[in-house]
Amino acid sequence: MTRTLIKNLAPLPDGTVTVAGWVDTVRDQKKVQFVILRDESGAVQLVNPATRELGDDADDAARSALALTETISGLAHGSMVRVTGELKHDERVKLGGLEVKIASLEVVSEAIPETPIAEDSSLDKRLDWRFLDLRRPEANLIFRVQTTFEHALRTWWVENDFIEIHTPKLMASASESRAELFELEYFEGKAYLSQSPQFFKQMAQPAGFGRVFEIAPAFRADPSFTSRHATEFTSIDAEMSWVDSHEDVMQMHEQLLVAGFTAVVEKHGAEIEAAFGVTVAVPSLPFPRIPLAEALELVKARGYEVPRTDGDLDPEGERQLSAHVREAFGHDFVFVTDYAAGIRPFYHMRHEGDAGLTNSYDLLYNGTEISTGAQREHRVDVLIAQAKEKGLEPEELEFYLDFFRYGVPPHGGFGMGLARVLMLMLGLGSIRETTYLFRGPTRLLP
Amino acid sequence: MTRTLIKNLAPLPDGTVTVAGWVDTVRDQKKVQFVILRDESGAVQLVNPATRELGDDADDAARSALALTETISGLAHGSMVRVTGELKHDERVKLGGLEVKIASLEVVSEAIPETPIAEDSSLDKRLDWRFLDLRRPEANLIFRVQTTFEHALRTWWVENDFIEIHTPKLMASASESRAELFELEYFEGKAYLSQSPQFFKQMAQPAGFGRVFEIAPAFRADPSFTSRHATEFTSIDAEMSWVDSHEDVMQMHEQLLVAGFTAVVEKHGAEIEAAFGVTVAVPSLPFPRIPLAEALELVKARGYEVPRTDGDLDPEGERQLSAHVREAFGHDFVFVTDYAAGIRPFYHMRHEGDAGLTNSYDLLYNGTEISTGAQREHRVDVLIAQAKEKGLEPEELEFYLDFFRYGVPPHGGFGMGLARVLMLMLGLGSIRETTYLFRGPTRLLP
Repeated sequence: MTRTLIKNLAPLPDGTVTVAGWVDTVRDQKKVQFVILRDESGAVQLVNPATRELGDDADDAARSALALTETISGLAHGSMVRVTGELKHDERVKLGGLEVKIASLEVVSEAIPETPIAEDSSLDKRLDWRFLDLRRPEANLIFRVQTTFEHALRTWWVENDFIEIHTPKLMASASESRAELFELEYFEGKAYLSQSPQFFKQMAQPAGFGRVFEIAPAFRADPSFTSRHATEFTSIDAEMSWVDSHEDVMQMHEQLLVAGFTAVVEKHGAEIEAAFGVTVAVPSLPFPRIPLAEALELVKARGYEVPRTDGDLDPEGERQLSAHVREAFGHDFVFVTDYAAGIRPFYHMRHEGDAGLTNSYDLLYNGTEISTGAQREHRVDVLIAQAKEKGLEPEELEFYLDFFRYGVPPHGGFGMGLARVLMLMLGLGSIRETTYLFRGPTRLLP
Repeated sequence: MTRTLIKNLAPLPDGTVTVAGWVDTVRDQKKVQFVILRDESGAVQLVNPATRELGDDADDAARSALALTETISGLAHGSMVRVTGELKHDERVKLGGLEVKIASLEVVSEAIPETPIAEDSSLDKRLDWRFLDLRRPEANLIFRVQTTFEHALRTWWVENDFIEIHTPKLMASASESRAELFELEYFEGKAYLSQSPQFFKQMAQPAGFGRVFEIAPAFRADPSFTSRHATEFTSIDAEMSWVDSHEDVMQMHEQLLVAGFTAVVEKHGAEIEAAFGVTVAVPSLPFPRIPLAEALELVKARGYEVPRTDGDLDPEGERQLSAHVREAFGHDFVFVTDYAAGIRPFYHMRHEGDAGLTNSYDLLYNGTEISTGAQREHRVDVLIAQAKEKGLEPEELEFYLDFFRYGVPPHGGFGMGLARVLMLMLGLGSIRETTYLFRGPTRLLP
């Protein structure tokens, strides 16, 4: 099909072109008809001089003209059409300074005239009709940004000798805890959906892979209905061998993000500004690092007392800390480090000489946590003791503990939620906007 | 950690270096000790002049030398060590023409001395200990090839304006058929694991995304134990709008593969030849295309009668056809086109004027099917009729059928199994070798 994408019309000389996409709007004036046609790359104005009736001496051309006019009058919003016509550059046309005079128009797929969602529909209603909601140029932009961001991350990893792995999502036991775990029938037995690739990306370390990454779904049977949680989400994961501490992981993490943000700013910075009114900035290196204990003090000094009793930051605490960091360092990111062992998983390595603290971090971006990283405990006896301390049964973890029995290098890594990064980058209110098809406790459709 | 990867030693001048990895072998001779150290990038010989006993006048240096010798004597295969020493280029050293004279050696993680698998262990036993099995240089190479291949595919897609999507793996109903479907408890109800991203990548077409791709897990509750099947596999998927027929899909598909193979040959061609004894070739364009009916005739002419009664090729038929294609066209790939409607899913578009045939293809590579592609039926009334014809309940497919009611462009795409491509590219016998952690009816561990 010799179709031209709308974004590629501008550089073409005036002349015959074929475009294809969906009908955005029709202005059906008495003497002239205008159609705004949209495709994956943009929108263009189509124009047709209206033929409203036939004279007695009407010839075939006049009859065709009448038929075309009537077809255009009957076009429903959303119908897919293929149009051939004369491209004409005309500075007076607001939409891109060009229009296409229709020679022929084929309705390839008719839409139901009544659209089930409108601009003011609720988010939930829009998600019911996500495939129509995604036609909005801003929604389309989100996933083009996602594409650019992910590709830049992977390119950075590939250039830095990371191996891409695909870890199994079907497991014989829980990867983190038995809470939030989906269970399924698996032939004669049971299986569980992976809550994170944690165990399997760690497996790559005794396997001698050195450095690995994965971008893949993870599953949490989490009954939360917040704007930040989903039962299925895309997890960005990396793990690397021969780290000295979580500092090595943070350095990898921040360089990676700089690569991702640089690509997004270069390719979509102006579009993002126009669509969402936010200026995406490439973060400077290094990102600020603040130990959790100090972070709690900083938040308190701002007049906010974190109500949680476990010593972790709550969402408002995260926002307060990020506000402080923006004021003090002019930075959108902050690594909160050295979390207490009590609020970290059993596999996080503890401080040498202070078992109450871990070699771990959370990464906050624009006021919200997007990632957790850590150096992992690689000494199997310590690991077993820490698992027991958390009330886990070492017997259930045998396959995992085996990874540490035949030689394993010190290692660390992080997991990061893709939809959260995009939400915060684009200043949106919910990961439901930045997830292609959101899954929650009450949403499995479409 | 100022660690040098073993592959980066060669260009360095003689002098002090630190390397880290696992002990491959120890040759503990009376006067000298050799250790082959391996890391993710290669192997290097370490050397230590043995100190077997202390004289009466032994100083600290002598005592250290004895301790080092004893440590090396006690090194178990697989233990992770960090070594600082003097790099020396020496053409007489078979392994890379260099060695490192050990100054200090730290055992970072001790391995159990008895290794549970050996070179002659069965594949099943090796999979029980996959993290050790993956330490073999050939196994490591497989996943470096995978990384390069996937990155080349994604780069091609990104350069050709495809959007990367992450479709949900949790669904409210079956995507293809109720057979081979995993069911799970989902809060108060049931969910199913996605058998393919088919419906959701098609959703991107009415959503106006134009062209999309995804590399992600897919799940089949398939009780097969063949070398080509798994219950969880990585599916490579693409879908594009405004195709005229499956020919457009095949053109995209073959260009994509050329990009992937070119990258693999450039980066790993020599290594693959050395490790597996196969020469990976970049396929020439276009790939041969043979209608299924003709393919069956060609196979028959070779003296093989396909025993299946449904008119499809069986595995031996695929091998015979590929042998023919190699002889007749010198090509490793062949698109088998125009499958009968009876052996294709309901959403494949039928030939205009011959509803018995579909606008579809299978792609065979080195004798085995790696992919199925097609133009999709986008007319909702035809789609419903075809679903009913296959015994499906349109009521269960309502969410999918909605995609076609508000305007949808003609479209098509393919799904391709990553592990199969790698298996056939590297001349291996099973996708279990080319899957990081294989999942089958009796395998959920590790």
